[in-house]
Amino acid sequence: MSLTRPVSFITHEAAAKAVAAALEAARARHVAVVAAVVDGGGHLVALARGDGAFIASIEIARDKAYTAAVFGAPTDGLAEALRHSQVLLDGIASRPHVVLFGGGLPVRHEGLVIGGIGVSGGSEEDDRVCATAGLRAIGIGP
Amino acid sequence: MSLTRPVSFITHEAAAKAVAAALEAARARHVAVVAAVVDGGGHLVALARGDGAFIASIEIARDKAYTAAVFGAPTDGLAEALRHSQVLLDGIASRPHVVLFGGGLPVRHEGLVIGGIGVSGGSEEDDRVCATAGLRAIGIGP
Amino acid sequence: MSLTRPVSFITHEAAAKAVAAALEAARARHVAVVAAVVDGGGHLVALARGDGAFIASIEIARDKAYTAAVFGAPTDGLAEALRHSQVLLDGIASRPHVVLFGGGLPVRHEGLVIGGIGVSGGSEEDDRVCATAGLRAIGIGP
Amino acid sequence: MSLTRPVSFITHEAAAKAVAAALEAARARHVAVVAAVVDGGGHLVALARGDGAFIASIEIARDKAYTAAVFGAPTDGLAEALRHSQVLLDGIASRPHVVLFGGGLPVRHEGLVIGGIGVSGGSEEDDRVCATAGLRAIGIGP
Repeated sequence: MSLTRPVSFITHEAAAKAVAAALEAARARHVAVVAAVVDGGGHLVALARGDGAFIASIEIARDKAYTAAVFGAPTDGLAEALRHSQVLLDGIASRPHVVLFGGGLPVRHEGLVIGGIGVSGGSEEDDRVCATAGLRAIGIGP
Repeated sequence: MSLTRPVSFITHEAAAKAVAAALEAARARHVAVVAAVVDGGGHLVALARGDGAFIASIEIARDKAYTAAVFGAPTDGLAEALRHSQVLLDGIASRPHVVLFGGGLPVRHEGLVIGGIGVSGGSEEDDRVCATAGLRAIGIGP
Repeated sequence: MSLTRPVSFITHEAAAKAVAAALEAARARHVAVVAAVVDGGGHLVALARGDGAFIASIEIARDKAYTAAVFGAPTDGLAEALRHSQVLLDGIASRPHVVLFGGGLPVRHEGLVIGGIGVSGGSEEDDRVCATAGLRAIGIGP
Repeated sequence: MSLTRPVSFITHEAAAKAVAAALEAARARHVAVVAAVVDGGGHLVALARGDGAFIASIEIARDKAYTAAVFGAPTDGLAEALRHSQVLLDGIASRPHVVLFGGGLPVRHEGLVIGGIGVSGGSEEDDRVCATAGLRAIGIGP
């Protein structure tokens, strides 16, 4: 019997760097956002709210990071993958803390999901760009 | 480092005047409504329930005011702005305390969102008119 | 910058063996229980409800396993550790999903919390004995 | 009529600095903690979870910061102030998101509550010391 399985989670150091980079990318686009990073268990590691960002964005950013981490997929990619069935799409969309629009990305490293990042506050495109910038700052992504 | 950022919130005096004016506008239209005003942090400052208004309207009025304040947009205008993406619209609509039908307006002053007003109890049109009347009574709006 | 930190979680194989052993120990004591195992992130890995066990025990067993994992301590030991302050004890006891009576144990391996086990359905003593039996079946504990 | 009242909230810059300093103080004490800062409206501005901190501490740190901000008092000082009536103490303690044990401090500046900081993960004394260290890093406190 194998008692344990090795898991790899994003560190606080990397998470803090990613949310700071996401906020910087938002400033460059003249929007105010919230950025959040969760570990592979979906639990918050770092969160930063830019001055002037919508209060509503706090929970949305966290939920985008959570959704991306626990499904191991970008939030909008997940919506695409479910689109063949409206019942399925609606059913997943209505689960607690699930967000299916753009701005949430899994944090992948060596084939494993080590966390998720979520950005909220700008347009869907703004949020996507800032989340991607967050990942790039820690050496992940295209 | 900048320690603080200045924020401007609606006073109790103005909030009380706005909800009273909203109820008066409702009486003139022969409907009974609840009117609520929140500050820029989304927290209740004044609430008034006209005699005979639906109990369900208490929370709806509050949530309309909250939605308008935390997104800085009229509740129905927010729905319009999200309509290009059904997933996005459904996703925001299902967030706790978010209301996307008419009757919620942000309270803007000198470019800042200082609060939100929400009215519930009449038709969507009634609620919109009463919320607008509430704002006019404190010198805001068209 | 360190991107990841290694974490070790209990496998499904070990979790299934532990809950089965807990149910067997319960049968030997002529009680019906629910046994649950969560990983180090507090998420369910295995759950087994013996025939005749209280429905209420499903959530209690899960919450005991969760509490033991996320605090890294036996549920009743945690209560003991907090007993010096009634405000602290009451405050932790009222948190969502926290259980402070006996029957929850952390699953420790090589100094790390790899999960938690919780048993509910018998007396506190029954639940403790069954949780311990679950751990022994996977080579953990005294 | 006075339409607005000026409010002063902690910036993201200061909040980020405070949570980083709280984590540094925790490392010096060889404990792993979560630190959170909210603005004067009780809404999260920054959160950081040190590697190895309890998952349960995420919500507790946030709730301590929230409690300190919305009551304008240290979490343990609030408990002291309510101790003359057990019914009052229990009643406040059971409100959602209220935490009455040590580790939450209001962030005061020029007589106003501009936010709150909460630390969770160590002993009550550890948490208090780290929260105080967070405030000192932004020039606040004794």
